Amino acid sequence: MSGDAVGVGLIGLGTIGTGVAKVLKTNASVISQRLGFPLRLVRVADLDLDTDRGVDLEGVRFDSDSQGLIEDPAVQVVVELIGGYEAARQMTLQAIENGKHVVTANKALLARHGKEIFEAAVKHGVDVAFEASVGGGIPILRSMREGLSANRIQSLHGIMNGTTNYVLTEMEKTGEDFEVVLKRAQDLGYAEADPTFDVDGIDAAHKLTLLVAMAYGAELTDEDIPTEGIRGLTPLDFEAAKQFGYRIKLLGIAKRHEGRNGEERIEARVHPTMVPSESLLAKVDGAMNAIAVHGDAVGPTLFYGAGAGELPTASAVVADLMEVAREIHRSGPAGRVAPLSYMPDHLERKPLAEAGQAQARCYLVFEAEDRPGVLGQIASILGENGISIQSVIQQGRAGTARAVPVVVLTHPAREASVQAAIAEIDALSELAAPTRLVRIEEDLG
Amino acid sequence: MSGDAVGVGLIGLGTIGTGVAKVLKTNASVISQRLGFPLRLVRVADLDLDTDRGVDLEGVRFDSDSQGLIEDPAVQVVVELIGGYEAARQMTLQAIENGKHVVTANKALLARHGKEIFEAAVKHGVDVAFEASVGGGIPILRSMREGLSANRIQSLHGIMNGTTNYVLTEMEKTGEDFEVVLKRAQDLGYAEADPTFDVDGIDAAHKLTLLVAMAYGAELTDEDIPTEGIRGLTPLDFEAAKQFGYRIKLLGIAKRHEGRNGEERIEARVHPTMVPSESLLAKVDGAMNAIAVHGDAVGPTLFYGAGAGELPTASAVVADLMEVAREIHRSGPAGRVAPLSYMPDHLERKPLAEAGQAQARCYLVFEAEDRPGVLGQIASILGENGISIQSVIQQGRAGTARAVPVVVLTHPAREASVQAAIAEIDALSELAAPTRLVRIEEDLG
Repeated sequence: MSGDAVGVGLIGLGTIGTGVAKVLKTNASVISQRLGFPLRLVRVADLDLDTDRGVDLEGVRFDSDSQGLIEDPAVQVVVELIGGYEAARQMTLQAIENGKHVVTANKALLARHGKEIFEAAVKHGVDVAFEASVGGGIPILRSMREGLSANRIQSLHGIMNGTTNYVLTEMEKTGEDFEVVLKRAQDLGYAEADPTFDVDGIDAAHKLTLLVAMAYGAELTDEDIPTEGIRGLTPLDFEAAKQFGYRIKLLGIAKRHEGRNGEERIEARVHPTMVPSESLLAKVDGAMNAIAVHGDAVGPTLFYGAGAGELPTASAVVADLMEVAREIHRSGPAGRVAPLSYMPDHLERKPLAEAGQAQARCYLVFEAEDRPGVLGQIASILGENGISIQSVIQQGRAGTARAVPVVVLTHPAREASVQAAIAEIDALSELAAPTRLVRIEEDLG
Repeated sequence: MSGDAVGVGLIGLGTIGTGVAKVLKTNASVISQRLGFPLRLVRVADLDLDTDRGVDLEGVRFDSDSQGLIEDPAVQVVVELIGGYEAARQMTLQAIENGKHVVTANKALLARHGKEIFEAAVKHGVDVAFEASVGGGIPILRSMREGLSANRIQSLHGIMNGTTNYVLTEMEKTGEDFEVVLKRAQDLGYAEADPTFDVDGIDAAHKLTLLVAMAYGAELTDEDIPTEGIRGLTPLDFEAAKQFGYRIKLLGIAKRHEGRNGEERIEARVHPTMVPSESLLAKVDGAMNAIAVHGDAVGPTLFYGAGAGELPTASAVVADLMEVAREIHRSGPAGRVAPLSYMPDHLERKPLAEAGQAQARCYLVFEAEDRPGVLGQIASILGENGISIQSVIQQGRAGTARAVPVVVLTHPAREASVQAAIAEIDALSELAAPTRLVRIEEDLG
């Protein structure tokens, strides 16, 4: 299950294309450890050959000849990242007709011409993969198609456009008007010069058509989906929403209804929506995306991550490249995906970090007798072990209890130092019970 | 790409096994629309043949002969759901040697004997699938192995044991002691009579070994992972955590460190952990699970859902069955997974729900002139259209503005009625601007 490199051709070296080239280079070793063979970027086509994208294309043929790329025998998989409808449609169909597999991030293309493209792919025996087209780096399409494939999907609620979610989050935080926040988002590069697709909900509707097909087998285009954007919202709305216990998000929503005669009807819409402040979707801020999917067997689920951006979107494109490359190389059922993600000969006993070297802020409870000086003793033992105190809570004695808890929150400290200090403190005669330690994790990834 | 049914044999008809039988029956049509052929439960083995599990096994051979099941030529895939180490190990290896594919939910088995089992599977050319062994219905293993396969995983923080998360959530909510809450969880069936595996963190450590293999290619067993359970926590700890801005969760944590010489070291541990109250992980309550994964390309992601239970776990087992069955039936690259989740001939234009029939609580803002009676007029138009008001916020006039916003929160109302009422209200001469509507979604799946 090891073998020759699979050759990749990339059309469009913009933000995402550059990310794909970077990920293929930076993570080449982990990619081939998971596949059993390498992915090789052999050719890139873009009209702009001059801009420095900060990526090393040494050994890669780079020119403006997309036609040549599509016909190049060294290219087994074409990555289409030019966006838009017609040019992308033609290139994709030509690549398929030339027997190339295609990976794309183009939701507009698939929302309008998906049927034609998938039929051509079946006819020519190639794969079309498009994980990056919805939810950026979140593996939501794989999860719908394979992870939740045993479910009837009851409902789906998605924050699927990072630009609008950023604008909404900023409007809420600053109390500023839509136009002011949009202008700033444009200056910061979070919104396009022409923000129509994003702020009017069209991009979310494109993505919703793909999710509705996966959820219900329903073929819709974005024109079937009632769509309302976020231009009409004012600062008052955010204040009032807060008072009512809601936050405002632009959601793509799909639900399944069963008529009296058992007939299935699909509800699909995109509009600004108030969601309960305590829901997980309400906590999805800035340019992040999340899709909540409710299946009849699995119940509620949620998938969260970056919905756009160079590297997150590239993460999804390269995952698709790896899947397609596995198909090119496959050799029997047990060879498709390594069960533990790495090929068996790349699974090994790895060195473990020394547990004592872990650093964390710590929560400590000392059940100490309520005598003068005990806190001082504890504090100096902590200090001698290089542990500094951030806060202390000491309550008065309750009733007849001899011991009172002293709660200490430390600054980040080494596990080994904390354990040494606890051992010293627990040896004090004033301690009525062993010290309790709960470690704090603040950087949750 | 349509064809004969794939035969499934199920060993162990406990909670999850019953769920698998139910899902295979209830969702048979959606499963075969996605696969292009049916899955058929042909045989079930369990020692208890008497208990009524509320599932219809008509046409399924049901006896206590697991050996016979493993050897039955009608069984192409064996689902192992008996749990535990040794008996499960033997049955799984025998099934593999007989050329059967295996689907299992047994993390204890894989944490201890995974290497032996996966090697046997490669040798005999069969698949071993185990999505249900971590995170119940959450497709976290697929996401690690395929969705995030282009990433170096930087860190992983998981709430991976529903029983302990339920106990922690209840302790926080009620202020009760661990033993009291555990007893109640046992009475309610959320905790086992012997809760050791759960409350001492062993189950979480089993699961972490699988995630660490997928994240880093590191072969560990649960015995390599420093593990601390939740028995030592007291009500004081939850109060103090709240004061400090944290919540307490039992986390499985894995991180990657690079030494000065570039050598990789893996940190893996399970212990009660304080996490910032505003983080998504802090919002994961009750028996739910969530795993936050940070990849170098994708950045932060989070996968949320039910970590246990009959149907959620069955959702993952049946997804695995579908994947294995596709391999049995496969016929070329474009045939593996239907690109839009349903086979092309099951994708169709489905009837759309009438947009006007959608029901939602609504947020409405009327920019009305500040004259007596305007609010009354608005309220009666709403009433005539069958819309009842839940709250009203009316602010005084600001400075010289002629109009003041009247904010209304309605009880759930039909979209068509709301649109009719808005049309009438906007026709009033007292209205200074078109009414703004934001729909509220409370049941987010």
